[in-house]
Amino acid sequence: MPHIALDSAEPGIRGLLKYRPETGRPLSELAEVLLRGPSTLTRGERELIAAYVSALNDCRYCSASHSACAAAQLHGGMALVEQVRADAGTAPVTAKLKALLVIAAAVQQSGLNVSAAQVDEAREAGATDLEIHDTVLIAAAFCMFNRYVDGLATTVPEDPDAYAAGAQRLVTEGYLPPRAEGPGR
Amino acid sequence: MPHIALDSAEPGIRGLLKYRPETGRPLSELAEVLLRGPSTLTRGERELIAAYVSALNDCRYCSASHSACAAAQLHGGMALVEQVRADAGTAPVTAKLKALLVIAAAVQQSGLNVSAAQVDEAREAGATDLEIHDTVLIAAAFCMFNRYVDGLATTVPEDPDAYAAGAQRLVTEGYLPPRAEGPGR
Repeated sequence: MPHIALDSAEPGIRGLLKYRPETGRPLSELAEVLLRGPSTLTRGERELIAAYVSALNDCRYCSASHSACAAAQLHGGMALVEQVRADAGTAPVTAKLKALLVIAAAVQQSGLNVSAAQVDEAREAGATDLEIHDTVLIAAAFCMFNRYVDGLATTVPEDPDAYAAGAQRLVTEGYLPPRAEGPGR
Repeated sequence: MPHIALDSAEPGIRGLLKYRPETGRPLSELAEVLLRGPSTLTRGERELIAAYVSALNDCRYCSASHSACAAAQLHGGMALVEQVRADAGTAPVTAKLKALLVIAAAVQQSGLNVSAAQVDEAREAGATDLEIHDTVLIAAAFCMFNRYVDGLATTVPEDPDAYAAGAQRLVTEGYLPPRAEGPGR
């Protein structure tokens, strides 16, 4: 049961975005830009970073949700996502993505854990400064989202189909609330 | 030296918000709503939570910056901020704020560390659900901001006067970028 009385039965972060739309809007906009906005990282790669960090933070709702989003947008599907979550170092992803996942895992512990050597390695594998920036910010943002969702003890659906259906909606419609909720925009 | 080539010499998060305005805007809006928007927690109390979490994360830039913002808006000034950072349990703050700081410290470790007993204690000390919500989100957001700032190794001014001057500007003008940067808004 959530620690506070929400105004809907929506699970995970969805109930929180609805409860407090003033913070919900910038949080949704941040997710939309980071995970779906123009980028040389694919949407699947960015969702994979989000899922990976959420799993490291033991956040069941976010890791299930973003694993489903990554699986829906990556060749390799859920099998690849599970390989990355089990051992990113040996998973069949590009050297660039592997190096970015190393940076994301460092950020999950502390920003101070990101080393110049890790950044050099990502750059040598072809990562641009903007890709390194976005990887750090995606990892940092999920350290926020995970804490937000679990810190208020939001509900976590058990049924994997619920996450697959949610992912299908996110892949199609994105993270922004329907326009009707944002008068004047 | 920052891990990536920024397009300004601005320190800490300021250089990052400028480098990537697409993410900078929702991040600034989140800070503005959480730390300065309408709330039954004072601006000083909210900045104190931000400073406290940033200190627990060893983020020198954010802890100095938000300590200065808290000091500028709290009776007790920097002496009180330093007492809270040294030992929140014995610092002369209200029972409600003390209980909210306990929740913030739990969030800093993991959302899963927030207990029903901690939430009950905050509620018994007079905290509303919305205050508990905002405390969790402020703490979670600074787990993001701190990782973002340190994960990219942004520069950290040594001079305390720089933070006092920055705080004066934030207290007066807030966290949103000047309107000219947001066409159509």
